[in-house]
Amino acid sequence: MDETAASAGSAATIVLRLAYSGGAYSGFAEQPQEGVRTVAGELRHALEVFLRRPVELTCAGRTDAGVHALSQYVSFPAADDELEIPARRWLRAMDALLPRDIAVQEVFHAAEGFSARFDACARTYIYRIADRPNRPVLTRDHVWWQRMPLDDAAMARAAQALVGEHDFKSFCKASSAEGKPTCRNVMAVGFERGRELGEEVLAFTITGNAFLHSMVRTIVGTLVEVGAHRRDEAWVADALAACDRAAAGPTAPACGLVFADVAYPEGALTPLA
Amino acid sequence: MDETAASAGSAATIVLRLAYSGGAYSGFAEQPQEGVRTVAGELRHALEVFLRRPVELTCAGRTDAGVHALSQYVSFPAADDELEIPARRWLRAMDALLPRDIAVQEVFHAAEGFSARFDACARTYIYRIADRPNRPVLTRDHVWWQRMPLDDAAMARAAQALVGEHDFKSFCKASSAEGKPTCRNVMAVGFERGRELGEEVLAFTITGNAFLHSMVRTIVGTLVEVGAHRRDEAWVADALAACDRAAAGPTAPACGLVFADVAYPEGALTPLA
Repeated sequence: MDETAASAGSAATIVLRLAYSGGAYSGFAEQPQEGVRTVAGELRHALEVFLRRPVELTCAGRTDAGVHALSQYVSFPAADDELEIPARRWLRAMDALLPRDIAVQEVFHAAEGFSARFDACARTYIYRIADRPNRPVLTRDHVWWQRMPLDDAAMARAAQALVGEHDFKSFCKASSAEGKPTCRNVMAVGFERGRELGEEVLAFTITGNAFLHSMVRTIVGTLVEVGAHRRDEAWVADALAACDRAAAGPTAPACGLVFADVAYPEGALTPLA
Repeated sequence: MDETAASAGSAATIVLRLAYSGGAYSGFAEQPQEGVRTVAGELRHALEVFLRRPVELTCAGRTDAGVHALSQYVSFPAADDELEIPARRWLRAMDALLPRDIAVQEVFHAAEGFSARFDACARTYIYRIADRPNRPVLTRDHVWWQRMPLDDAAMARAAQALVGEHDFKSFCKASSAEGKPTCRNVMAVGFERGRELGEEVLAFTITGNAFLHSMVRTIVGTLVEVGAHRRDEAWVADALAACDRAAAGPTAPACGLVFADVAYPEGALTPLA
């Protein structure tokens, strides 16, 4: 990132806050294969048409295929007078160039060398579950439907075992964990019942410094085992301690997950005028 | 309805509460043309497969193409031992037979001759607007996007002119109003700012005894003229008094509208066991 910034001769970084509906995409990150639609691919193309130059993107979190985002952050070094472009013009241009399931929400500038990935202090994900016999309709692409009601109090108690600095290898996609550091700091977890578009949902919110591949979805799949009373509460702590993916529950489906927020150091981001 | 009930020799009525996403349908009501997908057509087909007999449906409100429902009510005379079918089996069967954008939410029985249409005391619609420069994504199929912020206080004041018993001919699709009674009783209106799936929305809620064709959408289109300060607040009362569709504002798009609730006399509906 520093190298890219330097090579562009840039004195500042542009940061975009992005929302997208992940259903039509093979995840955020661009893929080497041809013909694979990715969010980053769509965004880079739109930016290159708008700015008339190549752009290399850094993102706060590489969301998987089907995962949504309310606040993904993306950074790239600014060239020349790009900071002079008013926010209104950025939004209008990006609206015209991006498909309707991706949209820039805010445009910021940051200091040279700022990275949406490495400068992030905390990331928040929300996972929504509909636990009731009647099938969700208006929120169908945003929840994991469970026909039986879940014991959310038991899930909330069990989830407390995950708070703190731990090796989360048990909750990392096995093929992604080998030879890489798997310690992460989970700062907060919580369940809340509410309504979205009028339909009842059980929302799980988790904040951490960073997350491993499929970590939130595996945590949710594990907690649902407890909520359905197929496993007891202490099993979650045991699964964590095992440092083995086989010890945890199934991976919850992607459509219930939203990358909801990223925290950066105070003052790091300044909205464009 | 009474005739149908009598001819089926039925001693009771089955009432379904239905949710649907209207985007893929030419409205609720079945159409004479072939190849037109309607919510009623899908539901009737599913019910006829499940019950193995012809079914004639009566609905609380015939929603237009693209309009959603959280609580549409549909009634039809029960045959023989259909009231013995447990609610759980109804929901499982309807899930299997209906497309994923339509789902039965609850199953009730009511007295012989009960009509989802004629026994309804009040109907509530919600219309959602996103009034901000950044384009909505997760709620994109559920809101009307307005790039400029709207003055919701002015809209709320102007909307008060609509409360009460009035001739709403100005707010009825012109081709539907001729030679028909156009008086309706609007019991309550209100605006509320909130969030759906994390995105900010301005929700307009309106309750009335019944609504004319396109009435809610024309009211919203008219109030948005006030909220955008293209018209003053008193113009809404003038438009109402004119009894002329040309005096009101444009018809707001269908996707922002949800048929949210229907009130029936207390005790009219009993949930199936």
